[in-house]
Amino acid sequence: MKTIQSDNYPIFFENSIAELVNFIKNGNYSRFFILTDENTGAHCLPAIKAELGDDDNYDLIEIPAGEENKDIDYCIGIWRTLIDFAADRKSLVVNLGGGVISDMGGFAASTYKRGIDFVHVPTTLLSQVDASVGGKTGIDINSIKNIIGTFTQPKAVFINYNFLKTLPARQILSGTAEMLKHGLIVDAAYWERLKASDLSLPDEELIYWSVEIKNKVVVEDPTEKGIRKALNFGHTVGHAVETNSLINDSDPLTHGEAIAIGMICEAYLSYKKTGLKKEELDEIVAVIGGLYPKYPLATANFVTLCEIMLKDKKNQNGKINCTLLESIGKCTLDHICTDAELCESLAFYASL
Amino acid sequence: MKTIQSDNYPIFFENSIAELVNFIKNGNYSRFFILTDENTGAHCLPAIKAELGDDDNYDLIEIPAGEENKDIDYCIGIWRTLIDFAADRKSLVVNLGGGVISDMGGFAASTYKRGIDFVHVPTTLLSQVDASVGGKTGIDINSIKNIIGTFTQPKAVFINYNFLKTLPARQILSGTAEMLKHGLIVDAAYWERLKASDLSLPDEELIYWSVEIKNKVVVEDPTEKGIRKALNFGHTVGHAVETNSLINDSDPLTHGEAIAIGMICEAYLSYKKTGLKKEELDEIVAVIGGLYPKYPLATANFVTLCEIMLKDKKNQNGKINCTLLESIGKCTLDHICTDAELCESLAFYASL
Ligand SMILES: NC(=O)c1ccc[n+]([C@@H]2O[C@H](COP(=O)([O-])OP(=O)(O)OC[C@H]3O[C@@H](n4cnc5c(N)ncnc54)[C@H](O)[C@@H]3O)[C@@H](O)[C@H]2O)c1
Ligand SMILES: NC(=O)c1ccc[n+]([C@@H]2O[C@H](COP(=O)([O-])OP(=O)(O)OC[C@H]3O[C@@H](n4cnc5c(N)ncnc54)[C@H](O)[C@@H]3O)[C@@H](O)[C@H]2O)c1
Ligand SMILES: [Zn+2]
Ligand SMILES: [Zn+2]
Repeated sequence: MKTIQSDNYPIFFENSIAELVNFIKNGNYSRFFILTDENTGAHCLPAIKAELGDDDNYDLIEIPAGEENKDIDYCIGIWRTLIDFAADRKSLVVNLGGGVISDMGGFAASTYKRGIDFVHVPTTLLSQVDASVGGKTGIDINSIKNIIGTFTQPKAVFINYNFLKTLPARQILSGTAEMLKHGLIVDAAYWERLKASDLSLPDEELIYWSVEIKNKVVVEDPTEKGIRKALNFGHTVGHAVETNSLINDSDPLTHGEAIAIGMICEAYLSYKKTGLKKEELDEIVAVIGGLYPKYPLATANFVTLCEIMLKDKKNQNGKINCTLLESIGKCTLDHICTDAELCESLAFYASL
Repeated sequence: MKTIQSDNYPIFFENSIAELVNFIKNGNYSRFFILTDENTGAHCLPAIKAELGDDDNYDLIEIPAGEENKDIDYCIGIWRTLIDFAADRKSLVVNLGGGVISDMGGFAASTYKRGIDFVHVPTTLLSQVDASVGGKTGIDINSIKNIIGTFTQPKAVFINYNFLKTLPARQILSGTAEMLKHGLIVDAAYWERLKASDLSLPDEELIYWSVEIKNKVVVEDPTEKGIRKALNFGHTVGHAVETNSLINDSDPLTHGEAIAIGMICEAYLSYKKTGLKKEELDEIVAVIGGLYPKYPLATANFVTLCEIMLKDKKNQNGKINCTLLESIGKCTLDHICTDAELCESLAFYASL
């Protein structure tokens, strides 16, 4: 598996911990910081410490695990720590963790002293195939996902398959949702290959393929003016379901679980509006439905969900915009969906 | 006075309120927001409202006046207001005010939904000749100036001389300091012209000339890798004095008053280290000393001031870096100054 070249930065797959240590040593940084959450601090940091050997002269910033901490308060905490440890413009931030760590660490670094270098070491399947590539950073405010952020590329990404071994099954499945999305939007052959695989722990090759797909899309359109919107498939409804779950559920949905629901709803909208065949809709429902537990979507919540969608940054002028499918492996951008259509799609999911 | 073309955006000098209203009307924005503080809301907003006529369908965001409010808490307030008023990616933020408004409004807009458009309508002399041009946005944390920010260009700048008529004399002088700096670092003829002018209210031509100088420097080096550092003359010591004053003084120094002190100290360092002539130093001291009241710099504070300089984002690797002068109108970059040298320069100011 060769190194993938993204928008001016490399994505390493092989010997990636050694590559990270090389990068740090050769980067002429005045100092470096490692950002972890309690889980990646316990499960992933030791391998990096071991590889660093005597050069483990970093400062550690650890935050509690969980999406609810990807907020401005913890971000301020990161900024304050950088200030307290006198981080200068030649400092490096290493984001060791899932998407929460890479999004928030990327945002904190991209705004500290108007921007210092950062790299991602993604430790969840989701962050390996999705969050660590593409240069979106972000934090939530009032539980509105990624409402504040920047487009800033990391200096490198280091993907290490072994980190997935300690990842809970539910978190693996969260990443699988984005892989399925990659197939659905642009690559029918990949979708077939995923269907034929054991998705309880996708193999390295599949991860590599997913990163290639995502990378190709974002390099073509870094700031989401066009084709990058393809990646939003499942995310208009999915983000709203996720936000709502974060606010109301004691054990909230993972990102991928929410996107899985969103993909079913938006596949339904695709069937209604953009020519997705009934058999294709059934196939998508069967594959996704077979992987993820059914989530109880209450009819009484549909209006709230539509209101959340309106606040989503993808939407403008009070209109809700979706990426839909023409067929499996072929998406189509910028479809305005009415509240009624969205409610119908939510009802479709609820009826399954 | 022609429109100046900066890095992809225009800086208007003539009919600038009408130009602003044109810009808003032709910009295809879904909605627009005007950010003011209580003073610009009272003194400057009415002229814009009048020009907007029936198109005054903006949402107003007003913050209390003062540098101490250029902080993350008010920034969060701006983000929350944008969320509450459902600002989308096609929204525009109009920053109507001094450098506090343009820095914070620029930062809030550049990170809201990963960046929405903003324009500056600078209403202080300082923001007209300095803060509104160059694309630096920022907020303070723990009173550390501009520690968090981005490099993001406004879509346009609208400079209206009339706004200066309500500006208190002390605020005019705050801007004059940056104009003097422009002369000192790159343009001896401009320095001469300033010396011969009534600086209690510089005329429009002088403002235009200053903007041209600043613009030329920043267009050449937008992210401060090289020549842009010229603009830091007076700011290594000046920022520290300003920060310290903000923390300790009941009536803190203005930015320009602090920079005036910084320029005297750094002119002294230039005389000691980089060949500035004794007569030139005397001339600088006489001109600046004649404009600004003497500030009591206590010897007991010198070490604290050096510590603040170390935290300044301009400095790296524990070394304090200054832009100095070779002569009036010619600067030289990247001079490391020791604590002892900096203390000596502070003592020089104190001894005047
Ligand atoms: N920037 C982007 O383009 C992008 C794309 C997709 C998702 N995201 C963001 O990513 C976030 C979700 O990412 P995520 O699912 O990785 O969340 P996460 O970072 O919260 O990780 C999920 C859980 O797994 C734990 N964990 C991480 N690595 C582990 C390991 N190797 N072993 C054991 N436990 C481990 C974490 O501590 C956490 O409890 C969301 O905030 C989403 O908005 C961003
Ligand atoms: N981004 C940059 O490149 C840059 C450059 C220089 C300074 N700055 C920043 O700018 C800030 C200082 O700017 P400033 O001096 O304009 O401060 P400011 O915005 O606080 O304005 C000074 C005072 O004048 C009042 N005021 C503004 N316009 C007025 C008017 N027309 N009539 C009456 N009162 C008016 C304000 O309410 C305030 O009380 C600092 O935070 C500094 O860091 C930024
Ligand atoms: Zn996603
Ligand atoms: Zn200044």
